[in-house]
Amino acid sequence: MASFFPAALENLIDGFASLPGIGRKSAQRLAFHVLSLPAEEAESFANAVLEAKRNVHTCPVCQNLTDGDLCPVCASETRDRTTVCVVSEPRDVLSIERSREYRGLYHVLHGALSPMNHVGPDDLRIRELLERVAQGEIREVIMATNPDTEGDATAMYISRLLRPFGVKVTRLGFGVPVGSNLEYADDATMLKALEGRREM
Amino acid sequence: MASFFPAALENLIDGFASLPGIGRKSAQRLAFHVLSLPAEEAESFANAVLEAKRNVHTCPVCQNLTDGDLCPVCASETRDRTTVCVVSEPRDVLSIERSREYRGLYHVLHGALSPMNHVGPDDLRIRELLERVAQGEIREVIMATNPDTEGDATAMYISRLLRPFGVKVTRLGFGVPVGSNLEYADDATMLKALEGRREM
Repeated sequence: MASFFPAALENLIDGFASLPGIGRKSAQRLAFHVLSLPAEEAESFANAVLEAKRNVHTCPVCQNLTDGDLCPVCASETRDRTTVCVVSEPRDVLSIERSREYRGLYHVLHGALSPMNHVGPDDLRIRELLERVAQGEIREVIMATNPDTEGDATAMYISRLLRPFGVKVTRLGFGVPVGSNLEYADDATMLKALEGRREM
Repeated sequence: MASFFPAALENLIDGFASLPGIGRKSAQRLAFHVLSLPAEEAESFANAVLEAKRNVHTCPVCQNLTDGDLCPVCASETRDRTTVCVVSEPRDVLSIERSREYRGLYHVLHGALSPMNHVGPDDLRIRELLERVAQGEIREVIMATNPDTEGDATAMYISRLLRPFGVKVTRLGFGVPVGSNLEYADDATMLKALEGRREM
């Protein structure tokens, strides 16, 4: 029954189903939706896939995704070049930019250390970070990997590697999320929030 | 902040976000996944979209989606050509085929009457059904539109149009839960529904 739909449609369903978080039924719905689109719209979607794959690459400095020579942050003349914020994924840069507070540069690792999933130091862009720090302009490195086991381990590992360079290494502050309800804070978060309390 | 990602990446995110049931965050995840694919895989996904749109069209007899001259069911020599099962969508054909009970032909309406959404009789493939029945070979028409208001209204409307032709018109029987969607019917329910069909 798998080959009940025309081959080209089955192919498209398979394509959607291979994406993360999309099951067989959703893939079918998406494929039927694409078939129902005007030809130009379906083409522009297909082209968006090809263009993204063709034009988007990593910034040679910070390893974030970009379609230019440098990413907009590294290319900007107004950013503070003495501070680097280290994140796991490109989408984390967006989260930090949204705070409108941070004016430094970034470094994207493209993952976190995870022995379970066979992700070691060589699979991350750690060497590139050390090279940047070795150039001497950077004075503070903020470790903004995720506040979970893998993110913590990655931050710890990198902070040790950075010690010989004599730069200040900080970790993103942990605590209760703003706008949340204390009632729902988990034990670990509450512990961190208490440890990180500040005089007011 | 919307233009924070490279334009080609934003385009791809927009493309995914325009699909039904995919929000902004999921679209981001899917786009990042596509970027992480080997170039050939991303290309084959884009090609699947183009090929499906290019090669899949409706069967001139039953209006189901196909990439051949006729769909596999209409082209088959072993199907019962005196019975036609009328469904709303191509995916409903798959649901009925899965029961392994039905051996007749299909007719896909591509929708259901819905005054609220400005879908009238001329927007469905009803004329094509009447032309098939007028040819005289068909003796029974099973109305298998969804068991909801629009599907019932569509079944009723078509059954009246078919009356002058003197064919037996039946409605898919008990077993299909009222208010549900045919797409999600399990095999056993679909079997009961076929066995319990009633003349209308």
